[in-house]
Amino acid sequence: MTATRHVAVLVGSLRKDSFNRLAAQALAQLAPAGLKLEIVEIGQLPHYNQDDDVGTPPAAWEQFREKIKAADAVIFVTPEYNRSVPGVLKNAIDVGSRPYGQSVWAGKPAAVMSVSPGAIGAFGANHHLRQSLVFLNMPTMQQPEAYIGGAATMFDEKGAIKVDGTRDFFRSFAEAFAAWIERVHVKA
Amino acid sequence: MTATRHVAVLVGSLRKDSFNRLAAQALAQLAPAGLKLEIVEIGQLPHYNQDDDVGTPPAAWEQFREKIKAADAVIFVTPEYNRSVPGVLKNAIDVGSRPYGQSVWAGKPAAVMSVSPGAIGAFGANHHLRQSLVFLNMPTMQQPEAYIGGAATMFDEKGAIKVDGTRDFFRSFAEAFAAWIERVHVKA
Amino acid sequence: MTATRHVAVLVGSLRKDSFNRLAAQALAQLAPAGLKLEIVEIGQLPHYNQDDDVGTPPAAWEQFREKIKAADAVIFVTPEYNRSVPGVLKNAIDVGSRPYGQSVWAGKPAAVMSVSPGAIGAFGANHHLRQSLVFLNMPTMQQPEAYIGGAATMFDEKGAIKVDGTRDFFRSFAEAFAAWIERVHVKA
Amino acid sequence: MTATRHVAVLVGSLRKDSFNRLAAQALAQLAPAGLKLEIVEIGQLPHYNQDDDVGTPPAAWEQFREKIKAADAVIFVTPEYNRSVPGVLKNAIDVGSRPYGQSVWAGKPAAVMSVSPGAIGAFGANHHLRQSLVFLNMPTMQQPEAYIGGAATMFDEKGAIKVDGTRDFFRSFAEAFAAWIERVHVKA
Repeated sequence: MTATRHVAVLVGSLRKDSFNRLAAQALAQLAPAGLKLEIVEIGQLPHYNQDDDVGTPPAAWEQFREKIKAADAVIFVTPEYNRSVPGVLKNAIDVGSRPYGQSVWAGKPAAVMSVSPGAIGAFGANHHLRQSLVFLNMPTMQQPEAYIGGAATMFDEKGAIKVDGTRDFFRSFAEAFAAWIERVHVKA
Repeated sequence: MTATRHVAVLVGSLRKDSFNRLAAQALAQLAPAGLKLEIVEIGQLPHYNQDDDVGTPPAAWEQFREKIKAADAVIFVTPEYNRSVPGVLKNAIDVGSRPYGQSVWAGKPAAVMSVSPGAIGAFGANHHLRQSLVFLNMPTMQQPEAYIGGAATMFDEKGAIKVDGTRDFFRSFAEAFAAWIERVHVKA
Repeated sequence: MTATRHVAVLVGSLRKDSFNRLAAQALAQLAPAGLKLEIVEIGQLPHYNQDDDVGTPPAAWEQFREKIKAADAVIFVTPEYNRSVPGVLKNAIDVGSRPYGQSVWAGKPAAVMSVSPGAIGAFGANHHLRQSLVFLNMPTMQQPEAYIGGAATMFDEKGAIKVDGTRDFFRSFAEAFAAWIERVHVKA
Repeated sequence: MTATRHVAVLVGSLRKDSFNRLAAQALAQLAPAGLKLEIVEIGQLPHYNQDDDVGTPPAAWEQFREKIKAADAVIFVTPEYNRSVPGVLKNAIDVGSRPYGQSVWAGKPAAVMSVSPGAIGAFGANHHLRQSLVFLNMPTMQQPEAYIGGAATMFDEKGAIKVDGTRDFFRSFAEAFAAWIERVHVKA
């Protein structure tokens, strides 16, 4: 029997009715019992500026860093902006990675789901994000890859996934990540 | 004889003593007579949120968009944060690209210089940025590539480049970009 | 009035009934009058080995290099193998790029079309290829991007594109490339 | 006490005096006792062509696939050709990945070392390769990243690494990979 794992979920779009937020919420509901997903907000984080990390950093940065530190693992749910990661999400990653030597990301298992109204499923954002996760030393689940296209018609008015096959994919993605966490978890 | 070309320069680091800012300033000084480089600030831009583009967008977004619109071409001078483009720079790109169909980037010739204290010269940021420029339809100079490493010892106390060969490279980069602008410029 | 432009077309799949070959052939037929597309074969090229470039290189390498040299521009039509460029196509690019200082690619205008049975349209191959084109100094058309998905049902038994909208896209892609060649062509 | 792990090493350059081969050999010598590295040759593999996988595939493909199947893990040691993975190495990856559903790579722990005479250390090849490893479902070691620059002066006439710090890095890279294999190894 394994412990409950707390997973911080970062959503790359700030739009109120964001498909990515809906996807993150659906994922939270479909995750297995031992996996607790919680969205950590990123829109309030000032742009990273190394000068501001001297002395007293912005409170929003510190609170964000504490929340990530407290998590066992991280899932990134991201749209694609201009064939790459949205600036707002990349900024959250940058904030968490500094000051040098104090990254809050190091060692935490990660997964990436990219979500888009289009057919390509935000592939470009998905893989640019993965390149950052190498540097951040986050063991990242390789399969299943999750390029979620057609997001504009995916959810009903209550935010539930309409198609069984899609719901099953979300469930199996969460289950695979639960297994990945146990696989790469370093025992104390 | 060609007209003076006004080039907007975006600097991917907000740090006051940023090597990237120094590099951008050096580039401005070494550029040929017909090329006027001006840094357009990006640190004040709120995170892009599509909801805020309905009605009256933030004034900072509008002012930024106007400045880019007024430019003939764009140079991106960027560090690498976590093997990719800094969030703050990507956000500026995102802000300029929206609302859909009203991107201020479209068609403007572009160049990328990446600057880092390390040996790798921010290669990862350089090429991730180039992937966005494909979508943004900015004809991008391919050569010379500019991966500027060793930036921590590159400038003297007045911000001038210390080594002749480096200064020559900056000059030739600016000259190549001037030629690239004329080459891809669409005549009215 | 502009001269006829001869375009070398490289097809990234060796399969006899390759969708990419069909796409390349369709593109050749739909191209405007002044653009002559010809497939240059790559399957016969030995793996690049710098040792073999000393003295007398393999005849297949030399013939390939001559064909590319003779072309005014290049179109790459590529599937995605394992989220990147097929080895056989990358090898052709490598062969053409050497020996150092004698690359046959330098300066030639380029375009990339990626073709796949899946929805993602070989995005990963498309952009990895573009990263090579930066180094090779090939001015590359940015828009329209061409991620051609659903290729398994795209062609009729004679190899013609079945859907009008797809055929129109191929035509407009070729027309845009013809315009791009004229735009970046360096006058003698 | 853990079992001996057999690691297949793929070298991305065919040149007889390849720096990458020297690096692979040095890594084999510096690896901890339980890690047995063996170079698996790739230069003899015909270009992948799906038509040739029907019936009796080329013997070289079959032998290569068997060798990879027999390995517990894989290390890729690669130069950068034109800012990406050499065609010959990508072809080996493609050969091992097919026929569909019979990939020999799936699940095997992987590491990437990129080696170059230049300063950038073949960063572009390193990360393009990593994108393929996502699809291939190979749990890939994130840290330490290995971008080995300055390879032309790294080895003495016997192929030994000259500088202590570099030798230490190779040793720690191999040790980290040994630990990574145990961490992600799925117990029977």
